[in-house]
Amino acid sequence: MIEPGPREECGVFGIYAPGHNVSKTTFFALYALQHRGQEGAGIVTCDGARAAQHKNVGLVSQVFNEENLKPLQGHLAVGHTRYSTTGSNHVRNLQPVCIETMSGPLAVAHNGNLVNTTALRNALMERGVGLSSSTDSEVLTQILAAPPDVWSSNLPAEEDRWVTSIRALMSVAEGAYSLAVLTRNAIYAVRDPRGIRPLSLAEFETGWAVASETCAFSTIGAKPIREMKPGEIVRIDKNGLTSFEGVPPKRKALCVFEYVYLARPDSVIEEKSVHGVRFEMGRRLADEAPAEADIVIGVPDSATVAAQGFADRTGIPFADGLVKNRYIGRTFIEPDDHVRKMGVGLKYNPLPHVLKDKRVVMVDDSIVRGNTAGPLVALLRSAGAKEVHVRVASPPVRHPCFLGVDMASQEKLIAYRLKVDRIRSHIGADSLAYLSEDGMLDIVKSGDEDRRGHCSACFSGVYPLTVPDDLFGEKTKQKLEAVWATPSKVTI
Amino acid sequence: MIEPGPREECGVFGIYAPGHNVSKTTFFALYALQHRGQEGAGIVTCDGARAAQHKNVGLVSQVFNEENLKPLQGHLAVGHTRYSTTGSNHVRNLQPVCIETMSGPLAVAHNGNLVNTTALRNALMERGVGLSSSTDSEVLTQILAAPPDVWSSNLPAEEDRWVTSIRALMSVAEGAYSLAVLTRNAIYAVRDPRGIRPLSLAEFETGWAVASETCAFSTIGAKPIREMKPGEIVRIDKNGLTSFEGVPPKRKALCVFEYVYLARPDSVIEEKSVHGVRFEMGRRLADEAPAEADIVIGVPDSATVAAQGFADRTGIPFADGLVKNRYIGRTFIEPDDHVRKMGVGLKYNPLPHVLKDKRVVMVDDSIVRGNTAGPLVALLRSAGAKEVHVRVASPPVRHPCFLGVDMASQEKLIAYRLKVDRIRSHIGADSLAYLSEDGMLDIVKSGDEDRRGHCSACFSGVYPLTVPDDLFGEKTKQKLEAVWATPSKVTI
Amino acid sequence: MIEPGPREECGVFGIYAPGHNVSKTTFFALYALQHRGQEGAGIVTCDGARAAQHKNVGLVSQVFNEENLKPLQGHLAVGHTRYSTTGSNHVRNLQPVCIETMSGPLAVAHNGNLVNTTALRNALMERGVGLSSSTDSEVLTQILAAPPDVWSSNLPAEEDRWVTSIRALMSVAEGAYSLAVLTRNAIYAVRDPRGIRPLSLAEFETGWAVASETCAFSTIGAKPIREMKPGEIVRIDKNGLTSFEGVPPKRKALCVFEYVYLARPDSVIEEKSVHGVRFEMGRRLADEAPAEADIVIGVPDSATVAAQGFADRTGIPFADGLVKNRYIGRTFIEPDDHVRKMGVGLKYNPLPHVLKDKRVVMVDDSIVRGNTAGPLVALLRSAGAKEVHVRVASPPVRHPCFLGVDMASQEKLIAYRLKVDRIRSHIGADSLAYLSEDGMLDIVKSGDEDRRGHCSACFSGVYPLTVPDDLFGEKTKQKLEAVWATPSKVTI
Amino acid sequence: MIEPGPREECGVFGIYAPGHNVSKTTFFALYALQHRGQEGAGIVTCDGARAAQHKNVGLVSQVFNEENLKPLQGHLAVGHTRYSTTGSNHVRNLQPVCIETMSGPLAVAHNGNLVNTTALRNALMERGVGLSSSTDSEVLTQILAAPPDVWSSNLPAEEDRWVTSIRALMSVAEGAYSLAVLTRNAIYAVRDPRGIRPLSLAEFETGWAVASETCAFSTIGAKPIREMKPGEIVRIDKNGLTSFEGVPPKRKALCVFEYVYLARPDSVIEEKSVHGVRFEMGRRLADEAPAEADIVIGVPDSATVAAQGFADRTGIPFADGLVKNRYIGRTFIEPDDHVRKMGVGLKYNPLPHVLKDKRVVMVDDSIVRGNTAGPLVALLRSAGAKEVHVRVASPPVRHPCFLGVDMASQEKLIAYRLKVDRIRSHIGADSLAYLSEDGMLDIVKSGDEDRRGHCSACFSGVYPLTVPDDLFGEKTKQKLEAVWATPSKVTI
Repeated sequence: MIEPGPREECGVFGIYAPGHNVSKTTFFALYALQHRGQEGAGIVTCDGARAAQHKNVGLVSQVFNEENLKPLQGHLAVGHTRYSTTGSNHVRNLQPVCIETMSGPLAVAHNGNLVNTTALRNALMERGVGLSSSTDSEVLTQILAAPPDVWSSNLPAEEDRWVTSIRALMSVAEGAYSLAVLTRNAIYAVRDPRGIRPLSLAEFETGWAVASETCAFSTIGAKPIREMKPGEIVRIDKNGLTSFEGVPPKRKALCVFEYVYLARPDSVIEEKSVHGVRFEMGRRLADEAPAEADIVIGVPDSATVAAQGFADRTGIPFADGLVKNRYIGRTFIEPDDHVRKMGVGLKYNPLPHVLKDKRVVMVDDSIVRGNTAGPLVALLRSAGAKEVHVRVASPPVRHPCFLGVDMASQEKLIAYRLKVDRIRSHIGADSLAYLSEDGMLDIVKSGDEDRRGHCSACFSGVYPLTVPDDLFGEKTKQKLEAVWATPSKVTI
Repeated sequence: MIEPGPREECGVFGIYAPGHNVSKTTFFALYALQHRGQEGAGIVTCDGARAAQHKNVGLVSQVFNEENLKPLQGHLAVGHTRYSTTGSNHVRNLQPVCIETMSGPLAVAHNGNLVNTTALRNALMERGVGLSSSTDSEVLTQILAAPPDVWSSNLPAEEDRWVTSIRALMSVAEGAYSLAVLTRNAIYAVRDPRGIRPLSLAEFETGWAVASETCAFSTIGAKPIREMKPGEIVRIDKNGLTSFEGVPPKRKALCVFEYVYLARPDSVIEEKSVHGVRFEMGRRLADEAPAEADIVIGVPDSATVAAQGFADRTGIPFADGLVKNRYIGRTFIEPDDHVRKMGVGLKYNPLPHVLKDKRVVMVDDSIVRGNTAGPLVALLRSAGAKEVHVRVASPPVRHPCFLGVDMASQEKLIAYRLKVDRIRSHIGADSLAYLSEDGMLDIVKSGDEDRRGHCSACFSGVYPLTVPDDLFGEKTKQKLEAVWATPSKVTI
Repeated sequence: MIEPGPREECGVFGIYAPGHNVSKTTFFALYALQHRGQEGAGIVTCDGARAAQHKNVGLVSQVFNEENLKPLQGHLAVGHTRYSTTGSNHVRNLQPVCIETMSGPLAVAHNGNLVNTTALRNALMERGVGLSSSTDSEVLTQILAAPPDVWSSNLPAEEDRWVTSIRALMSVAEGAYSLAVLTRNAIYAVRDPRGIRPLSLAEFETGWAVASETCAFSTIGAKPIREMKPGEIVRIDKNGLTSFEGVPPKRKALCVFEYVYLARPDSVIEEKSVHGVRFEMGRRLADEAPAEADIVIGVPDSATVAAQGFADRTGIPFADGLVKNRYIGRTFIEPDDHVRKMGVGLKYNPLPHVLKDKRVVMVDDSIVRGNTAGPLVALLRSAGAKEVHVRVASPPVRHPCFLGVDMASQEKLIAYRLKVDRIRSHIGADSLAYLSEDGMLDIVKSGDEDRRGHCSACFSGVYPLTVPDDLFGEKTKQKLEAVWATPSKVTI
Repeated sequence: MIEPGPREECGVFGIYAPGHNVSKTTFFALYALQHRGQEGAGIVTCDGARAAQHKNVGLVSQVFNEENLKPLQGHLAVGHTRYSTTGSNHVRNLQPVCIETMSGPLAVAHNGNLVNTTALRNALMERGVGLSSSTDSEVLTQILAAPPDVWSSNLPAEEDRWVTSIRALMSVAEGAYSLAVLTRNAIYAVRDPRGIRPLSLAEFETGWAVASETCAFSTIGAKPIREMKPGEIVRIDKNGLTSFEGVPPKRKALCVFEYVYLARPDSVIEEKSVHGVRFEMGRRLADEAPAEADIVIGVPDSATVAAQGFADRTGIPFADGLVKNRYIGRTFIEPDDHVRKMGVGLKYNPLPHVLKDKRVVMVDDSIVRGNTAGPLVALLRSAGAKEVHVRVASPPVRHPCFLGVDMASQEKLIAYRLKVDRIRSHIGADSLAYLSEDGMLDIVKSGDEDRRGHCSACFSGVYPLTVPDDLFGEKTKQKLEAVWATPSKVTI
């Protein structure tokens, strides 16, 4: 899939490791989580007494250097990579949010999105807490800072003040949240009761870590232990890992888009290799929507695996048909008219010697706005492709996400506006087919229950929790003109 | 006086002016208040609904440009220039502090220093308010954000929520505070009940302004109205200026060091020209400690006026004897041994044709650490001065300040460690004399009361309020070895 | 291959296109040539009278923005991307070199390396030309600036002064040079008589362009015409393309490493797709050194194609076994000991579900220093690979390059120090084999002559021209201890 | 005088001092010469073999830090501070110009301006030397790089190649040039035959130095020896100072504006204190144009001394009437209409308590464009001044400078366009008088010859050398409409 597509809002990491250089290890872990947020990064450490922090906009490799890592001393750390929309890209919105409380330093790194942020903001402000940013992460943090009984009166007394505070938070926060929380003496890993965003635990010789994805563990040489359970709190301190039930788990609703596009292929989610899942999606797509063709190509880099699966299943040879400029670096140069006509040429060039006179299957992982598939098809044809059959290794994206992925507003989703055949003619393909929702969910199912343990609301419109009307309205202005009869707002 | 000497912590400004470009006007006002803080600056504006802000480290002229001023829309603004010690010079400590509250945006620009910050921080944190900086200004702001009855139960009901909140704040905050507070629809000027830091009001064709010093008004073309009264709150909004009693005024204790060194000479404080006061101090110094000499010179730029007064009174001709490099720009280059021997040569060069074979009176405004007076005397002698008589237009500085001026810790104050004659031999002067405290206070007296309406604690050790022990201990480690019998901690 | 490996020194581009925004087009072309140099970039334009330039260190996308492109007006432009070693990475070494001459502006973008730079520098300095950088490109430019008869007395008179100057330059410069030269009214493309570096011509509706690689043409929508002939000068101006013989061509010696690693796979060199050549190299490698294995993987991204060719030929399935962090951004953070043990883990993670219990063929494009192949083999084993057979799609690199590729000094080349079997055990592979030089050259041959029209000196030690002793000595300190009998310095 | 007024183009410095940290000493010397150029700075050092350099735009304190000074090793150095007009403020125009020649490194720091730059550029370019900047300093440097006989065939043979080269340069360069030249083993100080720009020599324990002004010596603890003679070359090396006649001296023509405004008051020129000269100018002005008044004030900072002289002579008390914002830092914020009305208020505030009901003499050092004197007069009146008598301590500026001072083009000079009485009414003064040219020259005369040894062309239009027509035309478009009959272009 070609940018701008869905963008994950954040990667989180936490580590407890006496005798370890925790700031450097966190740096390298964030480097491995860079794909979950490229617009800012931060690290907070604690030495058992005081916290130290550094945050800035930019790539992880730009934000940190030896000089600014040096003051980040201690044996605990949390880190964060952030994606944000233009305009709110202020330093003050970066994470981890770090404050001083009666019980010492508190820092929170958050992946996900709350749906009742407005209500929680108001509750905080009514208590007299002024808020300095527009993020739901500051809201989470200030809720933790308050005496727990402010938020929930009937919580069991707990020796550990922070466990009680986190339980209080979980009792009022609605939505997706995978957290790494730093306090004076412990890191807490927290996952919402639906387990919407991934979060995993690992160990290494001198300590333990928590991260959004297991690829961070491979990078720092830690050994994965297990995933956080929905609703679970895990304290990581000198006693190792201690598990607490934060709130009772609800029906599991892990974001299926993590498999489709967001996660790194070398991560393991729900004990399944993301790479392997994508390969299977390509195979299943071949079963559901085969094509008569000479070669199968993928849109690099994210759809290459699915294309290989498609090729594996059909026996049609896999080939490289498109080359991607491997040097990133955003440019804000506006193309002039001549260059604009080139369309996606800035990012992709076709390989005519591969494509010439061939019937081509082009596999993409997903289509969101649909404004790059067309130029890609044209590019393939200009390089000599006789036929271009587009196959998408996920269902049509028709509904916005409120749980941590920036999918664009609903009217910009091409599959919300157009039926599949219209999309096909819009992008100029000889044929177009998507993987079915059933097909996709069968591959990743983690239970027999409905939705098979996942949130696939962006495909189905069936959300795992009630989305408040105001939030819904913001992203779905043309609700009534929807071409899809499926009720787009359903709670399961 | 030569840096590093006492440094004022901050200049504040506020404006209400529909139809005016308030961010530009605030920029120019801060430019005029640059001498009150050169390490950071910030502006917050409000259009009646939303606040916009920009803050950064650096000089006012470096922090702002046309591009970042443009989004600062509205008809209300507050601004701030900040001095801070190295290490805590983070963006997050810059002012104005700006937060969102139930009653809309709230931004506070603060000049002064609280003495009960620790207690107030604890009170806030006990309520569950996490604090993101180490500044007392954030403390002030979060106190304002709370429902007023949290802080003080017996406040009169007031239509205007913010007046009540400010009263609550004033009932608990101890110390020096001159504030410019921005809310959705009004600016509030606030001054502590002792009037320790200056704060003045002005008007212009389309609105009103508040500033730390009147020099800001001249720069933006506003006409001074009057000073804020101790303990007063003034609301500035569409109804003009409305005065409220915040707390009953206490014995006036305006910082006398504002006259001695801190304020700009073109400012007017207590209806007295600062320039005129300094001239008088020079004259009085001549009465108290005349000298047989051929010329009178001042240490530029801050002591030139007092030197002129000294010359005026004695009839000894005033002359330029020292030239100061007029291009500032801090350098962090460490001088090598050769250059270090030059001492103050980097900043000052003597004028031999003026000094040669002359008996010279060198007037300085104050001596704090005393490590530059010696090199200056040597410089004058190297240029041919036959005798050097040092006259200081203020009393010996022997006590630290807890109310907003960074005076260095007590043991670094040369007049705390050494008697006057020892200082004289230390700096190599032929004679040394200071202006008496009585002499100084007579010139600036604003009442017949003790201390004549001013705080001169840095000279006398008599503080206008009780300084908590912990705070006192930090800055006065060698209390017992003090050579001065004067009790250094007395409340009046 | 993993960095730091061979690094191409520079990509060049030139355009003549009235009515076109030549600076923007050059920007996008440089963006496509970013792989040929990531440490600096520059553009010079000319409007027929004056030149304008902008150069800086950084990626193309960092160096340019709308604001600094705007002043680059005109209908001619040349551009350059630069690779440089640390330390000499000064702005003054960036290209294009731009000077003013009697015949107007002159700007030169150079790819390649001269071997007689020292002699030419001396000749220039003896004439009294002071040189402001250490680059051979400034030398080239100042030679062009001189009256042509300074350098060569028997050149035919030519109407076009620049053609004569370029011929004079070509008569004295020894080595590799592909140039894009901007003058007041024309662009000149120039290629050394051996054609060591690639250089191609293209046209589009309003003009013509020259570029190091054809991938730049696809990106800007230009249509490739043909390659520059060795020794050729092509003037590009209002009359279109005019070809001149600069010097008589010598035996063709195009750098074979362009095919192996340097060029983008979507470029076409000598009418052969680079991608196709790499695929063939993988196939040939399979013929020469087959392996008993379950899967074939490539070291991403550069060796993936050869691995696919290997798989295609052997019938062993191709698979992804390694995932590369797709976000670049250099980091200067030194790994601590713990992280260092992870070795290549920062860049690569293995896919255990693919590798587990498998006999793996890992194809790399080349091995230069040999310090990353070992960690990669270990990484594969740690992920469960039963056997790891390393296959390299080019011969052992044993000799330094003097013609524009930074190969490291000879003693750092692992295949210079160790025989193949020792390398195998050094990297811990079950087997190791390289593609033969004959095999490689057969695939790319462009004639029946010796070396088949290419320079493969880094593999063979047989250089296409005499390398001066001083230059040779610099990069080959341990000449006498060489384990390879092949005379390492032979002229053909 | 208020900016933008005349601006000096550059300060130069050179040092030879084995065992000394020459780069740091040069840094501090440039810091003292900051007033001669605030837009860029550079240092080049040499250790007897190689040169090292660092240059950038900005103030001296911004350009250098410990890190970039460290590589500047050696025992010789030259440094430069640069003023430049907007647009040509490129790094490539900064000085010292540093190149490599047959005789090793060569670096030139230049103060002054050549009048035959175009001819010299052409001569260089005809020889085939391409020029990379638009500065006359690069021209000087490349002329030095050539074999000396290129420029002058009849120079005496000299052991020291550089002396011959500098003589060759002096035989062709016309105009003002004070140079500090660094070569491998020696520094050369060079001054044009008219001595138009100042240049002085000094010694200290371990070596010798050359600087534009003696204030640099005081700052670094060096002892002034003497000024360079017009036409002199002084070599500074291990043998100390060796003097050579470069070209025969011509009639002395030191720029009188150095005394009036450009030089620092603590510098000594022609054995006269600049401060003392300015004081005398004030006294003489009082003789020539006394005024009935109550106080004398100066426009700070540059005219304060002349005002003191005026007061001293008339007996009218000197007073501070205007306060200048002492924090510089250019701002590029455009004032809005309201602020613009404030005029000079951003820089100056009046002191009403000094000015009220007073008849004021305001002394300025010079009036160039005349657009700030008016607002200042208005400012004084608004502060209560009853009468304002403007006295200018130099003659009317009516002619442009071609020798190193940026005076604005002729039609912008108010005294070129208007007679004195019209200027008076334009600025709203009660009276206006200038110091006479004779009066000025009498004070600074260094001989009995015409012009008394100085260039005062900006006042008289009588230039010390022939200004080429093209150069003249550029700055004097309205030649024929000149109200002044004095022929404005005369050679003496």
